[in-house]
Amino acid sequence: MAQVSIQDSEIDIVIGAVQSDLTSFMEEWRPIFSRYHLIIVKDPDLKEELKVAGGFNVNVYTKSDIDRVVGSSSSTVLFSGYSCRYFGYLMSRKKYIISVDDDCSLAKDNKGNMIDIVAQHVSNLTTPATPFFFNTLFDPYRKGADFVRGYPFSLRNGVACALSCGLWLNLADYDAPTQALKPGHRNYRYVDAVLTVPTRMMMPVSGINIGFDRELVGPALLPALRLAAEGKFRWETVEDIWCGMCVKVVCDHMGIGVKSGLPYVWREERGDAVESLKKEWEGVKLMEEVVPFFQSLRLSKAAVSAEQCVVEMAAAVKERLGPVDPVFARAADAMVNWIKLWKVAGSQTAVA
Amino acid sequence: MAQVSIQDSEIDIVIGAVQSDLTSFMEEWRPIFSRYHLIIVKDPDLKEELKVAGGFNVNVYTKSDIDRVVGSSSSTVLFSGYSCRYFGYLMSRKKYIISVDDDCSLAKDNKGNMIDIVAQHVSNLTTPATPFFFNTLFDPYRKGADFVRGYPFSLRNGVACALSCGLWLNLADYDAPTQALKPGHRNYRYVDAVLTVPTRMMMPVSGINIGFDRELVGPALLPALRLAAEGKFRWETVEDIWCGMCVKVVCDHMGIGVKSGLPYVWREERGDAVESLKKEWEGVKLMEEVVPFFQSLRLSKAAVSAEQCVVEMAAAVKERLGPVDPVFARAADAMVNWIKLWKVAGSQTAVA
Repeated sequence: MAQVSIQDSEIDIVIGAVQSDLTSFMEEWRPIFSRYHLIIVKDPDLKEELKVAGGFNVNVYTKSDIDRVVGSSSSTVLFSGYSCRYFGYLMSRKKYIISVDDDCSLAKDNKGNMIDIVAQHVSNLTTPATPFFFNTLFDPYRKGADFVRGYPFSLRNGVACALSCGLWLNLADYDAPTQALKPGHRNYRYVDAVLTVPTRMMMPVSGINIGFDRELVGPALLPALRLAAEGKFRWETVEDIWCGMCVKVVCDHMGIGVKSGLPYVWREERGDAVESLKKEWEGVKLMEEVVPFFQSLRLSKAAVSAEQCVVEMAAAVKERLGPVDPVFARAADAMVNWIKLWKVAGSQTAVA
Repeated sequence: MAQVSIQDSEIDIVIGAVQSDLTSFMEEWRPIFSRYHLIIVKDPDLKEELKVAGGFNVNVYTKSDIDRVVGSSSSTVLFSGYSCRYFGYLMSRKKYIISVDDDCSLAKDNKGNMIDIVAQHVSNLTTPATPFFFNTLFDPYRKGADFVRGYPFSLRNGVACALSCGLWLNLADYDAPTQALKPGHRNYRYVDAVLTVPTRMMMPVSGINIGFDRELVGPALLPALRLAAEGKFRWETVEDIWCGMCVKVVCDHMGIGVKSGLPYVWREERGDAVESLKKEWEGVKLMEEVVPFFQSLRLSKAAVSAEQCVVEMAAAVKERLGPVDPVFARAADAMVNWIKLWKVAGSQTAVA
């Protein structure tokens, strides 16, 4: 598999706005984002007017756009809070999407240079992934790297990479209990590595800082699992964790890869983890059901596209997890509805 | 699983001497190694007298010791070249072994501090491994790290870590073809991370810089696969690659972990890769048979110790790989012989 070179016009930057004033966020990211088309989706629960910085090539979507495309009845179910960014995935017509939370800042690498997250995600996505055998020297396709002695030559061509999961400096992506237990805990370790997550190994994908090949796996990045007491802070959500398991199962089934590691973003503090804990976070309990389910899930050979994989997965969720908790039956329905939306949206031209 | 604190007296440093003058190697490592008991095994093919530095607590073993323990008929088969270090594993009575090739120097971390490889291997071995779910924040048991949001709480205790695989700066561990294709290629990227290699994921373990729990998996670190044209340079060997697959299968079967990453050593150049290539290196071809075999190998529930696992594996090697190439039938025999030796050696006191 050869390295691919891509155009700026093949990339959408998708930002879910859960805060109303995005100007300082956008100004900070201007050096990186100004070359690309931006899609900003305003959280439909957000009452204040959205403020965005000028001088960008941007489409802004709000509740009225969501209602128009989805129908007002189901819009808040699927796209409220952090899930609003999924509406951006639906509206994009580009091959690649880079998605970043609006509490992220530019980070520096360990030489003090500003990190271009778009360039790094694109590099991760356009070089092969190696999910079938572990390379101790990390991503063999990175400049200056290679395959270690003993790596089978037949596996060195690798496979397409569909998803690139970036990381976080300062406030790492912990759950509410961890954050509450270690309130002063910060992550300052810059790990200069990208690696392919092995096949059949489940992982918690975070939606904070990711890039993906929309044409390849877009339909599998979906809003489905919503906690009853889900809040407006990352540590109160698991929508992206569920979505990550879905997309990882799809990638494993389709024989394509997922990478994790660089690029880093800097995350600012927001919210009070101890307050969040009082909401009786169900995430802990649900994960104990979710992980064995996805670990054991095998899709049929009939499922050859991401859409087909998701529909098959939704049926398995309903059958095997539905009886455990009503939250799972709702997730299964959301997955089926998402695929319907994806097909409709995909056959339309972009909504501006 | 709680973090364990261990004594210096529970560690053996094992060095296989493939060069005759170890004095400068030992002087360089004195600040790190002087606190520990050393086992040095002289390559039985080495004709020159072995020179070692004074002032160490050391046992030196030579061909006559090997002959005495193993019997002269099979000594060179099992313990020549880099494989001589396995004789040290056999002679050790300690819980932990750290093994380093004699062409390694002290490396510095990315802050310019000398790396204490023993401390790092011990830290890797005495903190839990997490092979059943991927933590995007690398080793959650490292100081300053934790489990990422979405990591199931039931898996956070982890399991015992049996093997710690370190890495290499300057001359990384490539095979002869890669080294010959990129003669000027050097590895200067210091990746500040340790990670658990996921269960059921095969990996190429390198014997250059490793630590392991001898009591837990010692019998599975064995000299078995010997290339017909094996030489005296690392890139001409696969003995440790085979050994690594064996120990990984054993760890997966026993539900214990393997880590990869820190610590780094600095590797000096030695040998001519292009000359090595002229030997028609069989490693490339053999790995294509070896990898699918180990990937699909499942041991029976009756195998509950590393010894039993190896005996069962040897039978599978003989049956499934034996017909492919005589090198595998010899490897199977070597594995069985190794377990016999291990049992005999384990019931004796140390040979001084």
